Amino acid sequence: MMPRSRPLLARAGWLVAGLAAAACSSGSGNPGAAQTAGGGAVADLMKARGLSEADVTAALKTYTPTGRHDEYLLFGSGGHSGQVVVIGLPSMRILKYIGVFTPEPWQGWGFDDASKAVLAGGNRHGKEQTWADTHHPALSETKGDYDGQYLFIGDKAGARVAVIDLKDFTTKQIISSHVIESDHGAAFVTPNTEYIVEGSQYPAPLGGEYADVSQFKEKYRGGAVFWKFDRDKGRIDPAKSFVIELPPYVQDLSDAGKLGSEGFVFMNSINTELAYGGNMEGNPPMESGMSQNDMDYLHVIDWKKAEELVAAGKTKEVKGFKVLPLEVAAAEGVLHFVPEPKSPHGVDVAPNGDDIVVGGKLDTHATVYSFKKIKALIDAKKYTSKDPYGVPVLSFEETIRGQAELGLGPLHTVYDDKGFAYTSLFLETVVAKWSLADLKVVEKISSSYNVGHLTAAEGDTVSPDGRYLVAMNKWALDRFNPVGPLLPQNFQLVDLTTQPMQLLYDLPIPLGEPHYAQIIKADKLKPHDIYSPIGYDPIADAKSPDAAEGGKERVERRPDGVHVYMTLIRSHFTPDIIRVKQGDKVFMHVTNIEQAHDATHGFAIDSYNINLSLEPGEHNDVTFVADRPGVFPLYCTEFCSALHLEMAGYLLVEP
Amino acid sequence: MMPRSRPLLARAGWLVAGLAAAACSSGSGNPGAAQTAGGGAVADLMKARGLSEADVTAALKTYTPTGRHDEYLLFGSGGHSGQVVVIGLPSMRILKYIGVFTPEPWQGWGFDDASKAVLAGGNRHGKEQTWADTHHPALSETKGDYDGQYLFIGDKAGARVAVIDLKDFTTKQIISSHVIESDHGAAFVTPNTEYIVEGSQYPAPLGGEYADVSQFKEKYRGGAVFWKFDRDKGRIDPAKSFVIELPPYVQDLSDAGKLGSEGFVFMNSINTELAYGGNMEGNPPMESGMSQNDMDYLHVIDWKKAEELVAAGKTKEVKGFKVLPLEVAAAEGVLHFVPEPKSPHGVDVAPNGDDIVVGGKLDTHATVYSFKKIKALIDAKKYTSKDPYGVPVLSFEETIRGQAELGLGPLHTVYDDKGFAYTSLFLETVVAKWSLADLKVVEKISSSYNVGHLTAAEGDTVSPDGRYLVAMNKWALDRFNPVGPLLPQNFQLVDLTTQPMQLLYDLPIPLGEPHYAQIIKADKLKPHDIYSPIGYDPIADAKSPDAAEGGKERVERRPDGVHVYMTLIRSHFTPDIIRVKQGDKVFMHVTNIEQAHDATHGFAIDSYNINLSLEPGEHNDVTFVADRPGVFPLYCTEFCSALHLEMAGYLLVEP
Repeated sequence: MMPRSRPLLARAGWLVAGLAAAACSSGSGNPGAAQTAGGGAVADLMKARGLSEADVTAALKTYTPTGRHDEYLLFGSGGHSGQVVVIGLPSMRILKYIGVFTPEPWQGWGFDDASKAVLAGGNRHGKEQTWADTHHPALSETKGDYDGQYLFIGDKAGARVAVIDLKDFTTKQIISSHVIESDHGAAFVTPNTEYIVEGSQYPAPLGGEYADVSQFKEKYRGGAVFWKFDRDKGRIDPAKSFVIELPPYVQDLSDAGKLGSEGFVFMNSINTELAYGGNMEGNPPMESGMSQNDMDYLHVIDWKKAEELVAAGKTKEVKGFKVLPLEVAAAEGVLHFVPEPKSPHGVDVAPNGDDIVVGGKLDTHATVYSFKKIKALIDAKKYTSKDPYGVPVLSFEETIRGQAELGLGPLHTVYDDKGFAYTSLFLETVVAKWSLADLKVVEKISSSYNVGHLTAAEGDTVSPDGRYLVAMNKWALDRFNPVGPLLPQNFQLVDLTTQPMQLLYDLPIPLGEPHYAQIIKADKLKPHDIYSPIGYDPIADAKSPDAAEGGKERVERRPDGVHVYMTLIRSHFTPDIIRVKQGDKVFMHVTNIEQAHDATHGFAIDSYNINLSLEPGEHNDVTFVADRPGVFPLYCTEFCSALHLEMAGYLLVEP
Repeated sequence: MMPRSRPLLARAGWLVAGLAAAACSSGSGNPGAAQTAGGGAVADLMKARGLSEADVTAALKTYTPTGRHDEYLLFGSGGHSGQVVVIGLPSMRILKYIGVFTPEPWQGWGFDDASKAVLAGGNRHGKEQTWADTHHPALSETKGDYDGQYLFIGDKAGARVAVIDLKDFTTKQIISSHVIESDHGAAFVTPNTEYIVEGSQYPAPLGGEYADVSQFKEKYRGGAVFWKFDRDKGRIDPAKSFVIELPPYVQDLSDAGKLGSEGFVFMNSINTELAYGGNMEGNPPMESGMSQNDMDYLHVIDWKKAEELVAAGKTKEVKGFKVLPLEVAAAEGVLHFVPEPKSPHGVDVAPNGDDIVVGGKLDTHATVYSFKKIKALIDAKKYTSKDPYGVPVLSFEETIRGQAELGLGPLHTVYDDKGFAYTSLFLETVVAKWSLADLKVVEKISSSYNVGHLTAAEGDTVSPDGRYLVAMNKWALDRFNPVGPLLPQNFQLVDLTTQPMQLLYDLPIPLGEPHYAQIIKADKLKPHDIYSPIGYDPIADAKSPDAAEGGKERVERRPDGVHVYMTLIRSHFTPDIIRVKQGDKVFMHVTNIEQAHDATHGFAIDSYNINLSLEPGEHNDVTFVADRPGVFPLYCTEFCSALHLEMAGYLLVEP
């Protein structure tokens, strides 16, 4: 008895310190350690902090010890912060805000000549834009799976798209077609990232022309921009890109076909009513004006056919951009419509490539279309009618596989690896889990509060992982400590491996209102630790011809101005004194010659509004006119060493 | 036996699911729930995720269930992001980035007329500044304790100070003296927030004058700005503020005396060598040039005496600002020096008000001065010498209480409620806990990596809480998933209630390089949920005369331009169509007439670079010239309702 009873008793004894008991049974460490390790056992801590059993399991499923890395990275739009947020799962720690459309000084983003030029690429008809409303991030794909190479994101407010290189988490390109004035269904990629799709939202005359809104039906249009991505260069090639002109319905979200539906893009829309507001002119406000009809139109776009027509020169030019006219798209079979019910929102192609799920904001169903059925009707040219713009309309009944009765306000749908779909119900404030097989609801989990978008691990690929889902809630209310009238949003991490699903974590989003996100396996990313060779220009993606070298630092007065070739290394600038005359144009060529991981230096000049962030090996140029005389300290803005405060110097501008 | 043995066996049985066992013993819930609740027991989860006992206790000490609020809020500088970061403890969730010196579109910060004006208040000699290097946040104090009303923060790069009102977490004022060119010892407050102290860092001719650096000793100066705070108005009053001129030593950090030392400010410095760089002119670089002498000078400033002299008109004017000349400060007993060893850094007055602790970056000690001893020598006019600028120097030996042998590179010191001090050792990469009583080290805890500043709960007050310490580490290296060459920093939460101290959490900082932070009890903050009355202007802190009212919305053409009085409510703008002519000056007067908590609306006009964030009841004005003709969608950038996408309209600019 003793040998077997002693451990039992010992364990029973350790129940007072439940943790140690658990530790014993899992064979890790000795009971005594429980006290010294944390000064409390599970039971005591549960009592002290009022934690339930579910809280304890949630804590242990998310807590990530010092130095341990996360399994997944979430890339979320920064909403109208104009940036991208990177979050680790399951720890739900925010790892980085990437400067994209909005200048951000910590990264030196928009402060050196090269990143200023990237931002200037996003000017709208010559107007500088210092913010954006980023909506849909899209990871680059190969064969319908995330490849971890690039991230693309659209700007609703500026109808622009940005390219972020994941080898250094840096924005390399911002571009606008100047054909459309607003986008929403952006960015979405085709299965091999041939194109980045940018769908317009609020109709307007193409190319920034003027027409009164009373000519909405005749003069206002939408458009689907197909941005050609050059993977070798890592940049969008506007010369090989094109727009498909669309009717002035308010195009909403997009998704690219995959597997059997590869070659097609699906874009939903609202406003077959052609409402345009005018609530002080006797018209209904848009919210009601656009919600009168029972059906709107899912746009089915054959982009491979469009590609052929563009190659065949069937386009017109708008602002120097190739535009496939609406009548051509309609006549040549590039564009078909399928009715979709009740203020549709969200179109999400299932991993099988055939099921296309559309939510209806004012509906209680998600409608499941079959691409095979759609394609059969298209091939048979079997139309129920044409819309006022001549676009063939297919039968609703003959294209759907069925409708899933979900609840109030279905918006977006994501997928797991077991044939289940997860749909956000905004009005009901829940996520509904349902089966693609029988379209029946399995269970629902509440969100706090009002879930909009949602995202699942590798959920937009041909092979989702399941595991985790994140509900991206639009209201926070009482969830967190009050921080004034402007609240963070609440991301809720949900465990998909348990039945029922378990809420694991509430994450406040401290900056921006993310709309959508994608979650990728962390091991697919292999970013650089440093820039090499020394003198690397991250925007040119090459060593800069103006890189400064140790021992060859210099100040050169040339006809165009004063050129300063400066190196940075712990803990000094060389040279550390720069003398110029008032009115001189100054060209700073600044190189961080460190190659040690994390040995970043900043370069700031007081009052001249200059702050560069130079990662190890990085080179930046910054050009300015020394128009104000005086003495201006320059210094390193990163705490780089014990003598960091001494990493300083002076810009002397002689009157 | 049975009655007593059965529970034992039952418990023993539940050991397999350690959690349930613990739950049983703490009497919460039934064992069976353990499986359904989280699908795993403590032991299983420890095994599955490789968690140690210490990890489990750390997880349970920090995990904060949905809807549960944090006990403390940490206000951290955003470094060269120019913002302020707010973090909840112990969950270590980032609750908000407050826009301060850098425009931030999610908050509409720097996009409406009023916040643009606040930012313009920080222009340097007329030059716009779109970033800052925020260093030291200071919570407003009453009787030496945080009162939760205001937060102040300095900008090292621009020598500026910002005032943030904690009733709405909004920046209300940015101000610069234009006397100094750089600050570091900012912001620090006197015990009743009479003054906000801003100490210069890199010397320069006062008032932005020019002088070659070779005239460093004669023409370059430092300064201590004493900003008078008007608590009733919630703004700094520059007319009642003044600068104390200082020698061109590189002044570093500051702290205000409290209790017995109230009325004094302590500011350390380096560079009695008067080095100024010139490493391409045959001089040593600053890092070595400034590290030659064994002793530098702790500045002891009698601000109440200075106040009298300023009132008596003993000042000179620099850029319209009152400056107390160095010779007056030296002669009249406003300024005394005390030698401090080995590249001093950090001066921190203990809660008792008498101990003043100074770290030495190249020292192994923290030096503990006694204010009583300093004051006695000052009163006795007992000086060992005067510095080259005539400032009386007190005896090192006669002012110290002793030196604590800590280790390599002591920087900053914070305090708990039990008489212990905690000092960051940058080179040794640890935090040392030591006793103020006998100046002996109790224990050390490692940081990952290289701790710079550190902060403790209510640690800068006369009554610290102990409980938590946060090590603010300058390097992250391998701590988190790689996110490119620019890494986050690592904040480490430490439990001070256990012996030894326990590391609880690693938090990556995704934006900015925080320098310092303060931690306040959350229940001291009572921010507003909404703005009231409707039409509230957060910067004017009053209802706007241009507030729009429901039913009275209108477009008025006046001699100065077109005035639009617009209301926002779920889910429409009134009016939703605005017609102007090219070249018109447009005055938008926009009011969110909601009073529901979290019912924030955005107001964006595509391509006109306009995005406002209007919290419930908030009013903003934005003025622009309609210089580009065309059709510009306007819309709400916050997901405010199911029909949020329909909350839109048009700006029509007729050619």
